[in-house]
Amino acid sequence: MAGPDGAIGALVKRLARLPGLGPRSARRLALYLLTHRDDALRPLIDTLGEVAAAITPCSQCGNLDVSDPCGICRDATRRGDLLCVVEQVADLWAMERTGAFAGRYFVLGGTLSALDGIGPAELGIDRLIARITEQPVVEVILALNATVDGQTTAHYVAERLAAASVRVSRLAHGVPLGGELDYLDDGTLTAALSARRPM
Amino acid sequence: MAGPDGAIGALVKRLARLPGLGPRSARRLALYLLTHRDDALRPLIDTLGEVAAAITPCSQCGNLDVSDPCGICRDATRRGDLLCVVEQVADLWAMERTGAFAGRYFVLGGTLSALDGIGPAELGIDRLIARITEQPVVEVILALNATVDGQTTAHYVAERLAAASVRVSRLAHGVPLGGELDYLDDGTLTAALSARRPM
Repeated sequence: MAGPDGAIGALVKRLARLPGLGPRSARRLALYLLTHRDDALRPLIDTLGEVAAAITPCSQCGNLDVSDPCGICRDATRRGDLLCVVEQVADLWAMERTGAFAGRYFVLGGTLSALDGIGPAELGIDRLIARITEQPVVEVILALNATVDGQTTAHYVAERLAAASVRVSRLAHGVPLGGELDYLDDGTLTAALSARRPM
Repeated sequence: MAGPDGAIGALVKRLARLPGLGPRSARRLALYLLTHRDDALRPLIDTLGEVAAAITPCSQCGNLDVSDPCGICRDATRRGDLLCVVEQVADLWAMERTGAFAGRYFVLGGTLSALDGIGPAELGIDRLIARITEQPVVEVILALNATVDGQTTAHYVAERLAAASVRVSRLAHGVPLGGELDYLDDGTLTAALSARRPM
């Protein structure tokens, strides 16, 4: 047999299907949970259950939270006139971890992709336009990934926003902190050079 | 803030504490579960719940299963007179994956360790002696890890079993399949040479 069968086998198979886990780490994880039933397995079940029951996407920004609108959209101390457009909720979390942005977000949910049949309608670009019409903003920051898809999408969104009287910016490209020039790709180095700043 | 808070933050923290997962993979996993509520999150909760309710250690061998005695101990097609001693349930699973062993097991639950205060009593060596007295065996195979702790434990177990009229064997040491001599440690190569077999 390929591994434990029955209930444990079902658990291992289910864990192995999760992102970042393979058969080996799933077995290890299952064993850990089985041998730590009271201090790991049951609390995990409870936490997962709470999240499954409570979590909902925010109708305003697309963030995931236990309330709709989400905590960020309800937070009155945040600037409502600054809107940061991100691809995924994970990117929103990454921005929040910096603690450097105190505006609101708009989660596209992906990038334009002709191959996968994802067009402007699927990304909710119209909802984004409606959002900045209903709650006027002074600046839209396009915080999309520096990939081909991300930048294509950023250009498209910027074009669509051109009609609205709103400043559109994007994240800076350049040498990452702690980065060594010798290990950097040519594109990044070229971008960093052309966008050089006075000391 | 260091990441999402509230219920999602609690989930991420709990996931990050599991073996093999760090903060980054925990966030990724949490997001996956949140965005696949019906085809991943809820089934996972159900499977974990079933396992939490049903799983129990086998009183005969120490394996984890939904029944006691476990499926292996109850399987009448397996040889009851061959006993394979392993350190952990994970090692039992590894042996079972080979499909090469059709006897029964005895899980020690660890190795002797003066540092951690684990002596013969904690490992249940007496239970092992009792086991081979109640259900006589012709051979005990010591399938312990080829680590210092594993081999120390193997020697101790072998000594304790010397009184019983039972053959005691251990797994062979040698070149692993697919292994290249140039990359092999000296100890393994020495063991492989001294244990060489006629072609």
